[in-house]
Parts: sequence; structure tokens; C-alpha cells
Amino acid sequence: MSKFVYKFSEGDGKMRELLGGKGANLAEMTRIGLPVPTGFVVTTEACNDYYAQNATMSEAVVNEIADHVASLEERTGKKFGDANNPLLVSVRSGSRASMPGMMDTVLNLGINDEVVKSLAKASGNEQFAYDSYRRFIQMFADVVMEVPKAEFEVIIDEMKEERGITLDSEFSAEDLKLMVQKFKDYYRAQKSGQEFPDDPFEQLLEAIKAVFRSWNNDRAIYYRRMHNIPGSWGTAVNVQEMVYGNMGNDCASGVAFTRNPATGEKQVFGEFLYNVQGEDVVAGTRTPLPISELEKDKPELYKEFIEICNILENHYKDMQDMEFTIEKDVLYMLQTRSGKRTAAAALKIAVDLHEEGLLTKEEAILQIDPKSLDAVLHPQFDTKDLAQAKVIGRGLAASPGAATGRVVFNAQQAKEWADRGEKVILARLETSPEDIEGMHISAGILTARGGMTSHAAVVARGMGKCCVSGVGEIRFNDNGFELGDKQYNLGDYISLDGTTGVVYEGSIKTVDATISGDFEVLMGWADEVRTMKVRTNADSPADAKQALEFGAEGIGLVRTEHMFFEADRIQSMREMIVAKDETARRKALAKLLPIQQKDFEGIYEVMKELPVTIRYLDPPLHEFLPTEEKDIIEIAKELNMEVADLKDVIASLHEFNPMMGHRGVRLAVSYPEIAEMQTTAVIQAALAVQERLNISIYPEIMIPLIGDVKELTYVKEFVVKTADKLIAESGQTLEYTVGTMIEIPRACLVADEIAKEADFFSFGTNDLTQMTFGFSRDDAGTFLGDYYAKGVYESDPFAQMDQTGVGQLVNRAVELGRSVKPDLKCGICGEHGGDPVTIEFLYQTGLDYVSCSPFRVPIARLAAAQASIKYGK
Amino acid sequence: MSKFVYKFSEGDGKMRELLGGKGANLAEMTRIGLPVPTGFVVTTEACNDYYAQNATMSEAVVNEIADHVASLEERTGKKFGDANNPLLVSVRSGSRASMPGMMDTVLNLGINDEVVKSLAKASGNEQFAYDSYRRFIQMFADVVMEVPKAEFEVIIDEMKEERGITLDSEFSAEDLKLMVQKFKDYYRAQKSGQEFPDDPFEQLLEAIKAVFRSWNNDRAIYYRRMHNIPGSWGTAVNVQEMVYGNMGNDCASGVAFTRNPATGEKQVFGEFLYNVQGEDVVAGTRTPLPISELEKDKPELYKEFIEICNILENHYKDMQDMEFTIEKDVLYMLQTRSGKRTAAAALKIAVDLHEEGLLTKEEAILQIDPKSLDAVLHPQFDTKDLAQAKVIGRGLAASPGAATGRVVFNAQQAKEWADRGEKVILARLETSPEDIEGMHISAGILTARGGMTSHAAVVARGMGKCCVSGVGEIRFNDNGFELGDKQYNLGDYISLDGTTGVVYEGSIKTVDATISGDFEVLMGWADEVRTMKVRTNADSPADAKQALEFGAEGIGLVRTEHMFFEADRIQSMREMIVAKDETARRKALAKLLPIQQKDFEGIYEVMKELPVTIRYLDPPLHEFLPTEEKDIIEIAKELNMEVADLKDVIASLHEFNPMMGHRGVRLAVSYPEIAEMQTTAVIQAALAVQERLNISIYPEIMIPLIGDVKELTYVKEFVVKTADKLIAESGQTLEYTVGTMIEIPRACLVADEIAKEADFFSFGTNDLTQMTFGFSRDDAGTFLGDYYAKGVYESDPFAQMDQTGVGQLVNRAVELGRSVKPDLKCGICGEHGGDPVTIEFLYQTGLDYVSCSPFRVPIARLAAAQASIKYGK
Repeated sequence: MSKFVYKFSEGDGKMRELLGGKGANLAEMTRIGLPVPTGFVVTTEACNDYYAQNATMSEAVVNEIADHVASLEERTGKKFGDANNPLLVSVRSGSRASMPGMMDTVLNLGINDEVVKSLAKASGNEQFAYDSYRRFIQMFADVVMEVPKAEFEVIIDEMKEERGITLDSEFSAEDLKLMVQKFKDYYRAQKSGQEFPDDPFEQLLEAIKAVFRSWNNDRAIYYRRMHNIPGSWGTAVNVQEMVYGNMGNDCASGVAFTRNPATGEKQVFGEFLYNVQGEDVVAGTRTPLPISELEKDKPELYKEFIEICNILENHYKDMQDMEFTIEKDVLYMLQTRSGKRTAAAALKIAVDLHEEGLLTKEEAILQIDPKSLDAVLHPQFDTKDLAQAKVIGRGLAASPGAATGRVVFNAQQAKEWADRGEKVILARLETSPEDIEGMHISAGILTARGGMTSHAAVVARGMGKCCVSGVGEIRFNDNGFELGDKQYNLGDYISLDGTTGVVYEGSIKTVDATISGDFEVLMGWADEVRTMKVRTNADSPADAKQALEFGAEGIGLVRTEHMFFEADRIQSMREMIVAKDETARRKALAKLLPIQQKDFEGIYEVMKELPVTIRYLDPPLHEFLPTEEKDIIEIAKELNMEVADLKDVIASLHEFNPMMGHRGVRLAVSYPEIAEMQTTAVIQAALAVQERLNISIYPEIMIPLIGDVKELTYVKEFVVKTADKLIAESGQTLEYTVGTMIEIPRACLVADEIAKEADFFSFGTNDLTQMTFGFSRDDAGTFLGDYYAKGVYESDPFAQMDQTGVGQLVNRAVELGRSVKPDLKCGICGEHGGDPVTIEFLYQTGLDYVSCSPFRVPIARLAAAQASIKYGK
Repeated sequence: MSKFVYKFSEGDGKMRELLGGKGANLAEMTRIGLPVPTGFVVTTEACNDYYAQNATMSEAVVNEIADHVASLEERTGKKFGDANNPLLVSVRSGSRASMPGMMDTVLNLGINDEVVKSLAKASGNEQFAYDSYRRFIQMFADVVMEVPKAEFEVIIDEMKEERGITLDSEFSAEDLKLMVQKFKDYYRAQKSGQEFPDDPFEQLLEAIKAVFRSWNNDRAIYYRRMHNIPGSWGTAVNVQEMVYGNMGNDCASGVAFTRNPATGEKQVFGEFLYNVQGEDVVAGTRTPLPISELEKDKPELYKEFIEICNILENHYKDMQDMEFTIEKDVLYMLQTRSGKRTAAAALKIAVDLHEEGLLTKEEAILQIDPKSLDAVLHPQFDTKDLAQAKVIGRGLAASPGAATGRVVFNAQQAKEWADRGEKVILARLETSPEDIEGMHISAGILTARGGMTSHAAVVARGMGKCCVSGVGEIRFNDNGFELGDKQYNLGDYISLDGTTGVVYEGSIKTVDATISGDFEVLMGWADEVRTMKVRTNADSPADAKQALEFGAEGIGLVRTEHMFFEADRIQSMREMIVAKDETARRKALAKLLPIQQKDFEGIYEVMKELPVTIRYLDPPLHEFLPTEEKDIIEIAKELNMEVADLKDVIASLHEFNPMMGHRGVRLAVSYPEIAEMQTTAVIQAALAVQERLNISIYPEIMIPLIGDVKELTYVKEFVVKTADKLIAESGQTLEYTVGTMIEIPRACLVADEIAKEADFFSFGTNDLTQMTFGFSRDDAGTFLGDYYAKGVYESDPFAQMDQTGVGQLVNRAVELGRSVKPDLKCGICGEHGGDPVTIEFLYQTGLDYVSCSPFRVPIARLAAAQASIKYGK
């Protein structure tokens, strides 16, 4: 038989899954003898049972709760509803992962018209008793019975006005009795005549069910999606004897961290207030006192508290965030958990804890959330300034960092304003390759359309530039755009937070990225334990250099087509596309060859002897041709052809589903001369740089979009023939390899065949995700919102790889590939290569390396190190 | 060690894979004692070895051939190049499957300036000897040495003119000597002074290599693709002592069938000529004599031949197609093979052979190529008329049958001309749902764009109407179209052969489909052994009725969206789409409900107690909205909305990749009210028809495009709630099921999860193929041509399912699904459901049924029966 309820003394800190984080830590503190008010935990399994029974609590659970209430009554010597010595409890949610503020809490439960009197008598403080009562009614009505809470505040405000007072604590006991009466009248009116429930056990059951329900409120679902917490975990509920920080001036409530959460400095950091309940400390209505005041006022209590801090930090080997209450000069601990901290503080604390001998290097590495490194690598908003800022829209956190500037609407404007020394934010419906220069100049990029892997997002991340994409509510018009019911015109100030996806009005102060010594120390440790290599996706020497500084060990993806969009070469590219036969095509390709070769030389010169994977032309050709009438006319002129003929070419290249059209290796099969030209550029560049720098270059040629080995066989023959001839003519030696991107589901299924021809596999999980799910990243935005809202999906499969489906294909491909070539080099160059959760999965799959945009390289290094520690080398 | 060469006497008829069809049959005839000139076979493995060694013949093979030549010399007592008794051989290709005329043959090999003299002496016929020599030079130069053959014909024609003769046989021996000289001079000139090879063994090796090469000539590759013959099979080469039908009037060559190949009648049917080599009989330069002439001229030889015919038919248990030669009144058999026959003949022969006791029912069933049934189900062109017709274009054989009529260019014209009693052919760039009425009226459909699964192809097959799609060379203009350098205007006659994909000029007589008694008999036998059910894809009562007549056992796919395109409902559909909120959407849906319910009632009334699978709304909504400016203006008026607003809706529904967009279950997740309406229609219709006809209706509700079980769970809840409520209210019982289409790769990978919610799986292998390969059927046309030409692909994965990739996913899905629900009903409703090769594969996968368009139902029944016979029940 399942056990749905545990006394604190029956559990321990390892039982997070069953008892939730808060419950497990209360049990653990109880176990190691710290002063914790006694209580019990209703488990996460009881929550899941509640949902499995169509949102009803099964009798087994009810009975167990009743038994535990009886046991609690026995331990405390108090009784629910007892006129002399009543038991009052708090009811708090607590899931496996911390979800602060997302779910509900009820304090002072067990109170009613009789109990309040005995509470007044027992405490000798009638004001306290009725204040507790009115707080309970307020909380319970709101949280459990769904009675709107605003009206309660109206009643309080009206009474303050009548009495001419401003603080809650100025109400007399009589005032509070009247207030309780008014609250109950209001409750009755709202609930069609039903009385406020006065049976404590009924109150308790209802409160527990309300906490279960709060697991699926909108903000909890949203929070879980943001933090990849599965809905199936459920929440536990902690029921604990009340202790009071508001019984008088020998009482207090407070919160504290064992170290400074902003800087990581080793010094207890906390705040408290006398004569309040815990919620008042964080509510901000009164300014709390620093914990040092307690040292002055009550040195003995302070000493006891500091000792507890030390015990907890030594016990948990981590900085703790605690809640405590002092009732009549007795200290009680109500909660402890790992404290949230800034990224900089996290690095300092991890390094310090190792130096203090509390953590091994491996444990220190595991303490850092890899994603948090974004904050030390990119500018952030000044916290104080941010608190005042007005949110005007929300989109996707497409590329981290913070940016403030004057809004511009195209690359031309960006250039004009930037030339005048202004910082600019580029706002576009969506970006395309022609916007790249404008993006480069801007401090941040804002788009109305596009997901986490849209052009804007991918390019911005590559540049390490802040980007908020997919702000669907933006309405562009002639002068600028409307957002949040206001018009923003050229030159207006706006601010973007690419780490959260929020758009703000006006300008906000930013703080530059500061890479500290702690960062270097910790990344050094990570590299010591890491076995999976980390490469970067880079299309230019500048990107490559940035990535090298961040510790990249090679390039996993050079997208050659990005090079063709630049102004000095797009015309030759277009000549190639409109060529009527192979001869004309070869003529245009001959113009592109020296340009492309120079691009590769630049990249090799930066990367030197590190491997460089170059992907051959991938996008459908129509992407290089204009779509607007006026551009068509102009470009026909440039190409010296009739407008009608150019339109014919454009029409013939039109595709219903470009994502599934004539692209990737399919272009090379149709026009092997393109692959020949690219091979010539790759090899000649390598030979030139080898000679110039007297080093060895390691080019890896990657053929994209393979679905059948014969495609690779066909194109590889042209590549090898071209390359070997050039190498032989040069008299040099040059080691190059020819591999393929695995990004089509079929390629995963026939990977054993493909491995016979391929020197390496590089997973392109963007396309693989699109094909496996059957939706395109550009179109999925229209329905993924509905999917999240309706609980069909919990996370964006383009941001975090779907391990069940896509991961199954990756696993199968690696397995099949290595069944043929046991040492087949396997990596990933899709966007997922920078996602820590995905990296952990890929490590287990046996990949040799991940490749990601330069600014994600440190994140990947850390995530890969953590995977090595968790799953062995 | 491999053995690459076999004497005829070392082989038998079962060794087709190694010896090819021709070689195996020569061995078999040798084995059973028929008069076959002796020889040997170079195996298909030698061919594959040749390609594996980069088109060179390995020494092992050369040595084996030399040994076998020596053995042949010993057996015949003749010698290569011998002045007195020279050995001459024929060299013929022969692959595992018959590929008539696709590969090359060389006769009279071994001849040179010396040998010709001894041949003249030995035969006493100098004219014969030099005629053989000149024929050899011609063949060898063309086939082996790639010297253009046209010039040889020019030389012959010039000499005829000089001599004043018209027939080859009128040349004197001296003429032929001169001709040989001229041929050799020409050869030398073409090969830069190189002499014509005169060493017989060298000639032999070169000829064998030429046959190997001919395996990969363009027409062989094309033929293989058309007939699904893998390139990896390779061809064998038969080397056989020459016998001569052209040594004098006691010599002859001929071909014969053991039964009439046109009608199937049991009577030897053949043609021959005196004093010719075999090639002359089929060349058409002289009119051959019927075999009955042989009976008159040489009754003994005729008797011997008829006996051989009987022996062969009894031995092979099938109608045979034979080649024979009579050399100096001695009969030699040069080939036997299963005879090609018309579909009607095939049915008659199979039924007769069973009745004659030669075949079991199962063997008779296996004799019929299921695809050939198309010819008995659809009209065909009159053979004689067809022979005269001018081919003006080629496209895809999208829907079988033959049609002649006057060309029209839209549905309106089709109606006008048809109303006047004219037969019409509808020619369109591509068809769309608005063309359906016009397609219905027309005798055939011709499109410039679109593949085997384009709208035109799918709809035409559903109607059993002839269609040629994707005739890329058509250029539409204001008056009609250009094709094959000629303009065709409204009302011009053209003809289409949907079975071959050929377009003809003018009108061609057609012969109506004739379903004979043999057809009924054989299909009856097929149904006796068949275990896999055959359903149909049908969207209307008329289609359903047609399919029932063809033996369908249920409907596997009703596409509900086809119903929404019709004139009386598309406006309500559009109102639904432009609805600003759920209330407006429900209002429009309420108008669609009675229409949809009536559609379903019509189908149920036809299908009665057979199951009917109804797929819920699948295409993206923008397909229902106009794209042309003038249509937008008109429809905005109809919908009583601003043009700008309608344009906004259209823009908001625009998708980059509609195939991977907001469609299928994704629509139902966004707008569950659509699924509710469709459920109401499905259930209310079933209840009404149950009551009206007093029978049980079995609706199967199918949710398309599932990629994750949660999508199904979400939508199913609405479906079940709606259905159960209606059934309860009716007081009737109604068994309905809710299943899903499996058409997204991910669905196959997580099929165990999906099976928990789904009552059945129906594979949608059109979409599954698109997603698995990562190319869309609408766009693949632009590069599949290159793929075939370059040998990357051998068959169209949309016509025949890719068993390696897509098949692997289907297998996995069935396996995973049944691991959860052992009796999970699995079927297929994609286009592949009517392809015999795919059906055989699916039978082995364990599918319960296939569903295909009505006219393919008999094909599927036969293919399913054959699968049962081949792989056991």
C-alpha cells in the first residue's frame, strides 16, 4: 500500500522527489536536531493521485491525513478546535524543484470563532489573535475558495480611513473583531449565503486540495515551461505547527542567506522585523532591519542563529537561503534551501567552497548552472534601473544580454544613426540575410515574427548580440510600430532584455559583462574533467576569434552560404543561378572561387591547426533572388537580362515548401560544379595557409541534407577527385576528410550505409527536429502557443532537443554508424549544441563534440564537464 | 573462390540470380534434353565485380573465360580463329528480370579475314560468310567500340543505289567483300587509325565488357526504374556457339508463343523467315510467315517444334515465348522465357492452366501481375490506331486508362463543350479543389506540374479517370498551350495514355474496359486465400459505390476537407476561418454541421455495416481562402467584411512551409470546436442511418498528423465527450472508435505511447515519406529527374514505398503499438496502399488492411492474395 503522508521525522533531505524540496529540507533539519516546528508532508504522489482521480482526494489520503493530524495533536499537546489549547498550522506547497511564489500558502489554519478566543487567552494578546484570524480568512478565501481578494483590501483601507490610521499594526483588537465580521459577511455574499468553514479539519483538507490545484495554475505552468520542469512531478504539501513572529516584541520573522547572494562574499546576509509574520518581511510595506541589528539586540539568539547557518552550510555544502521565526525569544527554522544567487556570486561561492575544503572540484563544477554563464558573458541591466522600467511587450529570449538604444527600422537607418554616434535597436518584422550589416551595427535586435531558431535569433547568438524575437503583438505601420497601445517612431528609446525576452520603454542603464578570475578558475577545472570537445559555429574570422577566446577547440560549422549574401559576391552568385547551362554556370563560379578561397584562408589563419568543418551550399537558390518588383527590375539590369526572363527563373525556382525542396546535397547532385568550386576553394586556401604559416590545416568537408548514401557517394567523387588533384599538384601533404550532416530522419535510419562513405557525422538537429515533428520552425509559432496553453507541449523542441523522438533517432544513427566504423567521429552543429540539457543527453549518446555559437562555448564546456562528472568518462 | 563462369550443362532454371533469365533457361533446356547450341554463361557476379573494380575485368574472370572457351572448343570440335573449322559465337546479355531490347547483343563473333574464308568454304556459301562478317563488324563497332552505326547504313544504301537493288539479300559475295572493306576503312577512320580487332578472344572479352557496360546505359536505367529492378542485380552474359538461320533456304529463324499472347487462346502462335538471322524476323523489313507455313513446308520439323512447345509449357507451367533457328533442317532452341501477354490473355491463361491441371489456384494467382489489371479496368487505345499516333509529350502515368477528346482549359469550358456532347480533355497548369467538377466531366486530365501524388493524380485515380501529370514541357499561353513545337488551342483533339504517361496528337480510337469471366474467377480465388483486408479511399457515395463493386471491404479514408471545397459550403467554411472569436466560429460551424452530416449519411447508406474511417480536417486553413486580388475582393463582399481585413486574415495564415504548418491535429488543438462539430456530424449521421435502415454503423474517427500522444489525448477528450452525449441522448447503441493517422516520423518513434490512446493506427505514408526524406512531393520534381539520371535514386518513393527508411519506421510503429495493444488494428490509407510491391511489404509488417482508391481495389486484392501465398497466412 502507498504511503501518502510522512512526519518530518520520518523523512530526510534525499527525499525531494516524494516530499518536495521544502518538505525534504524540513525533515533533514529535524533529523540533524535543528529547531523546527513539528509537522508532516503530504507527498507529491498524493498530488498525482489527486489528478488521476479527476481532481478529488481519495479516501486513503484523507484517512492518512487524519491519522497524522492526530499524531501531531499528540506531539504538540494541542488539538484542532480546542477551546483551551488549539492547534494551528501552516499549509505550504513544496515541489521537487524550487518554484518561488508560483503556488499557494495558507497560514494560521485551524482558527475559528471559538479558537480565536482561546488563542487570545493563551497568548494574552487579543490584538494578535484577531489579526491572525483576519489574515487567515483573507488567505483562505482567496487561495482556497477563490473569493476575489481585492475587496478585503478595500475593507481594510476603508477602516483605516475611518480610524485615521495608516499601518495595519495600529488597529485595535476591537477594530480587528469588526474586520473579521466584515470579512465573513463579504465571504457569505460572494459564496451565495454559504458560511465561512469553521471546522479545522475541513479547512485543512480544502487547503491541501487548493495547493494541489495551484500546481496547474497558469503561472506555475508557465514557470515550469521556462525551467523545463515536467508537469508529472506534482507538488507536495507541508503542514506544520504555527509559530508566531507576531505575538509581541519578543517575536520576529526573517529571511537570511549564509553568504551574500549578489557578490558571493562569505558573510551572513539577512533581514528581519519584530512582531510580524514572515510574509510581512518580504511584502515591502515596512523596511526590514539588517541581521546585524539582531546581534546588537539579542546577541545570544544571534549567536545561535549564526551557528545554525554554519551547520546548514557545512551540512548541505552550499550557500543556504533560510526563513526563521522568533516566538517569545525562541528561534525556529521554517525553511532552508540552496540560495538563489547571481552568476558572479555562484562562481565565487563554488570556488570558495572548494578552497574552504567543503567541495571537491567536481562538486564545485556541478554547482554552477551552465545557462547562468550568459549573465557574466553579456551586458545586463542595472537592477535598480530595471525595477522602474515599464514593460511594453514580451517575446522569445532569443539571444541573451541587455541593450538600450534608439529604435530604427532597417539597415540603412541603423547605419545613419550609428554614424552619428547613437546606439540603435533594429526592429524588423523578421530579418533576412540582407539585414546582417544592420544587425552588426545595432546594440540589439527586435523582431515581430520568428522563433528561437529564426534567422534573427541564430545570427544574433552568433554575434553575441541581444535579441528578442517573435513579439507577436507588434503592429508595424508607416511611421514605426505600435506596441502595448503606444506608437514608437524612428529614434524613440527602447530597451531589450534578451535573457528574459522582455521589451521595455525608454532607456535603462546597462552593466557591462565582467569575466572574473573565478570564471577562469572554474572553467579551468571544467576543462580538466571534460572529455567531450566543444567547437563553435562561425562564418567569419571575427566569430572564430571570439570563439577561440571562449575556449573553442575547432569549428564545427562554417555556413558557406552566409558568405554569398555579402554585397561583393551576391551578383556572381546570381549569375550562377540564372546561368542557362553548365558553361555559363562555371563562368560565374569562377568569379566566386577567389572570394570564397579568401574567406576560408581568413578562418584557417585564426583556427590554425584546429579542425574546421565547412558545410557546402545549403539553402534553396531562390533565397538569393529578389522578390519585390522594383528589386527584380534593378537586378535584371545588373545581370544584363530581360525582366521577364529573370521572372521566369524566379518562378521556376518557386517552391511550395522550400524547407523540403531543392537544397543541400540536392543542389550538388544537380550541379556538381558548385561542389567542385567549393572544394577548390577549401583545398587551395588550406594549401596557401599551410605554406604561409608553416602549419598543418585540417579541413573537414561536410555535405548537408543527405538522406541516402548514394547522394554522398555521387558528390564525394567530385570532391575527392578535385581535392586530390590539387594536393598532388601542390606537392604538399594535406589531411582532409569528407563527412555529412545527419539532419533528415531517413539518414538516421540508414546511418550504417552512410557511414561506409562518411568520415564523420555532424547532427543538424534543427532540421532533424523539423522533419521528425513535421513542423517548420518558421510556422510552428502559429500553434505552439496553443500547445503550451493547453499543456500539450511543455518545452520548445527547437530550444531543447526532444530526447524521446529526435534523441531516439540520434542514438540510432550513432549506433548504426559505429557498427560500421567503430571510431566514427560524431558531433552536433545544430542550435541544440549549446543547450546544457541536450549536451548532457548527447554525452550519453557518445558524441565526440558539440558545436555552438561563440558565446555559448563556455556554457557548453561547463555542461560537458558536468556530464562527464555525472555519467563517468 | 568465386566461380564466375558456368557451362549451360552446369546450371539449371532456378539459377536466375546468378545466370540471368536467359542463361538459366538455356541451362534448363540443356538439362531436359532439348536441342540447344552449347555455350556458357558469365555470371551477374562477374558483372558486379566488373563495376566494383572500376569498370575493369579482373584477371580471375578473364582466366575463367579462357578456360571455358577452351572447353567449348573441345565440345564443338571447332577453334577460335581456326582456318579449317572456326568457332563462332553469339554474345547476349541476360539479367535476372527480362529487359527486352535494353541491353546489347553481338552475333557471329570470332570472325576475321581468315575465318571468313574458312566459313565460306565450310558452308559452301561465300555470300553467307561475308554477310555474316559485315553484320559482325557493324554490330561490334556499334555495340562494343562505340562507333556510330548510322554511317554503316549509309554505306549499304549507297551500294544498293550503285547496284540498283533494294534488298540486303540481293548483294553478291563480291559486293559483300567490298562492303566489309568499306566498313573496316570507316572503322579505322573513326578510331584514329586503329585496326578492327581480329583476335577472336580479344573480340570476346571486349564484347562481354560491352554487355556489362550496357547494364548502365540510359535506356536500361530508365527501364529498371519503370519496373523497379535494382541496379545491384547486374547482368549475366551468354556465350553460345553460333547456329545459322541464314545459310540457305534449308535454314530459318523464328519466334513463337505457346499460346496467343493477345487473347490467351491455347494455340501456338509464331512467325519465321527462311534464310535469315533472328534479328531480321523482328526487324520488320520483311513480312514474316505464320508458323502454320512451317507445318505445310516441313511437317516433321513442325511436329518436333510443337512437341518442344508442349514440353516447355508443361515444364515451366506457363506460356512460353521462344526463339528458334533451323540450320540445314536441324532445329535449335535459342531461348525460352515466360511470354509477355495482355492483361486479358494473362487472366485467361492463368485460369486455363489451372483447369488443365498444370497450376494450383495459388500458382495461377501468382501468375498475374497485379498492376496489369489496370488494363482490364480502364479503357485502352486500339493497338493499331496507336501505332500510327504521334507522340507530342511525356509526363507521369498518374492515373491509368486512355482518353481522347477536345482540349479545354478550365472547368467552365469543360462544361460548355461537354454539354454540346463533346468528349473533352482538361489541361491545367495544376489542378486545385475548384477544378473537381471539371475533372469529373472530362475524359482525361493533363497537367504541366505535379507528381504522382499531386491533387490531379490523387483525385483522378479516385475517379478512375485517365490522367497524365507533370508534363513539364507544356508552355501555357493566352490561346492554349505549346507542346512539342506546336500550338494547341481550345477544341483541338489530343489523346492521353494514363498508363504510360504519353500525350498524343489528334484522336485515337479507344477500346472500352472489358471485365471478363476469367477476371471474376481469378479474383474469387484471390479472395479465398487473402487474409489482409482491402478498403478504399472515398469521399463521396459515388466513389464508395464504385469501390464496393470492385470488392472494397470498408472505407479506410474519407477526407472531410474535400467536402468543404464544394460550392454550397465553402462560404460557411470561410466564415469559420475569418471568425474573430470562438462564438463567431461556432456560428459558422453550425451552418456546416447539417451539410457534413448529410455527406456522412450518404456514405454510410452505401457502406452499410462495413467500417468507415473518417479523417478530421487536415489541410491548413489558407487553402480555403482566395489568392487572386479579384477573388479576394469578391469574397470579402460575400463575407461582408473589408477587403483589407480579409487580406489581414490571409496574411496571418500565410505559411513558409504549409506542409509543415498549422494543419491536421494542430487545427483541432487550436480550435477544438471544429472537432466537436465533425464528431456531431459523424455520430448524428450514424444514428440516423442506423434507425432508417435498421443496421449497425461502424464509424472510425481518425485524427491526423499526431506527433505526440498528448495531442491525441487532448482532442480525443472533446470527441468522446461529444459522441457519448449524443449516443446517450439517442437511446441507441453505437460502436465507434477513435484512432490516428501515423504520418509523422516522431509518431512512429513514440507509437507505444500513442497506442495507449488510439483504437487504431492508419499509416499516412504520403506525408511519412515526405518527412522521412525531407522533401515535399510538390517540390521534389525539380531534382528527382537529376537523381534518376545520375543513378542516385532508382524509383519514385511516392509511388513505391521506400522499405529501407519509411518501411523501417512503419515496422517500428506497428511493433511498438502492438507491444502495448497486441490486437491494435493497423492499416494504411496513403497512396502506397494500392502499390503491389508495397502491399507485399506491408503484409509482412502485419498490417490488417490496406486502403486505396476505388480502381486500385482489385489490384490490392490480388497483391494481398499473392502476399498470403508467398509469406504464409
